[in-house]
Amino acid sequence: MLYGYIGTMKTAPGRRDDVVAILLADVDSLRDAGCESYIVSVSDETPDTIHVMEVWQSEEHHAASLQLPATKAAIAQAMPMLTGDFTSQGLDVVGGLGVSAG
Amino acid sequence: MLYGYIGTMKTAPGRRDDVVAILLADVDSLRDAGCESYIVSVSDETPDTIHVMEVWQSEEHHAASLQLPATKAAIAQAMPMLTGDFTSQGLDVVGGLGVSAG
Repeated sequence: MLYGYIGTMKTAPGRRDDVVAILLADVDSLRDAGCESYIVSVSDETPDTIHVMEVWQSEEHHAASLQLPATKAAIAQAMPMLTGDFTSQGLDVVGGLGVSAG
Repeated sequence: MLYGYIGTMKTAPGRRDDVVAILLADVDSLRDAGCESYIVSVSDETPDTIHVMEVWQSEEHHAASLQLPATKAAIAQAMPMLTGDFTSQGLDVVGGLGVSAG
């Protein structure tokens, strides 16, 4: 079952684009970790907030990715710019366009 | 600028999978309408609820897709099974894996 994840993170004022750059710096490497889709978005309606939508081959792939050295380094780099306000939800992907299977 | 959209729709009890089937019935045709990603998910944490994550070539492509006969027919077919409880948010996609550009 493909695993979906949606989440938001709030940044210190004016640091949103710095954190976006960290999130996107090494995005192609996520594919090797079992990531099918990783989409980073912002909105004028939610200032200093980053929205992430992800699809992974499994929940275990997502969990394992958080333990990768590159991921840990990115989190450590971003953390000082984050306020600690996060939202997240795990989802069971049942199908769609742009992912391998339902 | 790629346009992102996240939303939820609540269904009448037990009708969730019927509505999922409608949403996924013709998903490949969305590509021709400018859709890069269209992911349908569910969660045990949110019963009778369908989560949709979308990426479109532009906000205008998304808006135009809602006027397509196939889309209108799908909405008409699903509507009697929906409670009217929707959430949605439009987003500016700044990059990621699995979409064409930031």
